[in-house]
Amino acid sequence: MKISARNQLKGVVTEVSKGATTAHVKVDIGGQIVTASITNAAVDDLGLEPGKSAYVVIKASDVLVAVE
Amino acid sequence: MKISARNQLKGVVTEVSKGATTAHVKVDIGGQIVTASITNAAVDDLGLEPGKSAYVVIKASDVLVAVE
Amino acid sequence: MKISARNQLKGVVTEVSKGATTAHVKVDIGGQIVTASITNAAVDDLGLEPGKSAYVVIKASDVLVAVE
Amino acid sequence: MKISARNQLKGVVTEVSKGATTAHVKVDIGGQIVTASITNAAVDDLGLEPGKSAYVVIKASDVLVAVE
Amino acid sequence: MKISARNQLKGVVTEVSKGATTAHVKVDIGGQIVTASITNAAVDDLGLEPGKSAYVVIKASDVLVAVE
Amino acid sequence: MKISARNQLKGVVTEVSKGATTAHVKVDIGGQIVTASITNAAVDDLGLEPGKSAYVVIKASDVLVAVE
Repeated sequence: MKISARNQLKGVVTEVSKGATTAHVKVDIGGQIVTASITNAAVDDLGLEPGKSAYVVIKASDVLVAVE
Repeated sequence: MKISARNQLKGVVTEVSKGATTAHVKVDIGGQIVTASITNAAVDDLGLEPGKSAYVVIKASDVLVAVE
Repeated sequence: MKISARNQLKGVVTEVSKGATTAHVKVDIGGQIVTASITNAAVDDLGLEPGKSAYVVIKASDVLVAVE
Repeated sequence: MKISARNQLKGVVTEVSKGATTAHVKVDIGGQIVTASITNAAVDDLGLEPGKSAYVVIKASDVLVAVE
Repeated sequence: MKISARNQLKGVVTEVSKGATTAHVKVDIGGQIVTASITNAAVDDLGLEPGKSAYVVIKASDVLVAVE
Repeated sequence: MKISARNQLKGVVTEVSKGATTAHVKVDIGGQIVTASITNAAVDDLGLEPGKSAYVVIKASDVLVAVE
């Protein structure tokens, strides 16, 4: 499947923490860590666990920019 | 200002393309490029232009995860 | 690629309207039409045009519910 | 109330699962199921329960498109 | 229609600027101004123009918090 | 840090409710209450608690408009 999202960053899952319905998944994308908040069901479907290769996918309209 | 977003990735602006109301800004965050779709007004306010240091800021609930 | 988004609805593209930087794409998912606002670049990458099969992909945290 | 969201798909609630603060609500929109992740408080306010008619409401800028 | 979004703030439209496909609408919600980026089609459907009463509607998961 | 989000509304935290992974934070922005759904980790990082000054930050593309 090829998706319209402009941002598809390759990395490795480093941590998966499940809550009651929502999980937090951390992915190392080459030195920087991205945290995703997804459903527990998605974690199970994708078999996400530390060490697994994964992409973080982010729509361009969900990205903010900041400067110091 | 300190913000709640879990993802604040440091990089350098590489491209700014303004549309009629919406601009696309590309930021190099250490080898990977992130594209942000923000208002033209925000581009002006932050003085975004190629070469400028900037952070991409993404709420964890806006991040999807994919596997091959 | 397998993605975490809970909502992946199969359909057929019925309309593509490009703006200056942002395009509106309509997809018929079995009688109901879903409109997506994505970048012009994504339209080109995916070769979206009327008649093409496509999925609309929506993260569960981006869905609101309403009642009359 | 009339809302700006381009996507307002009519259906019937099929499942409501409450977590600690966040609930997952499934709505059947004519054969396809859409999952919404909303607050428990919203579930109570709208009286959402299986069998109830409801709309899923999605902003066009939150819709991605994918092709195989 | 009653909607699940936790944030429904009443105000008055003060400005509408249409772009190629996307419009920016400013709403005064009691002294503070909120800017919405919505489709031109939505502006037409809702008859938005300066002076008109309107609500800004924001899902709780789309709100960030910042401190100085 | 200066951020691209068009909406940065100043207020005071009135309530913080933590769930398993996600917290709901209410901020009074001059009479109207805005609810944010953010991670528990963000609540701790920012030291959010009732009485603390805070901004709610919302990207323009996440704001819907409704009329009666």
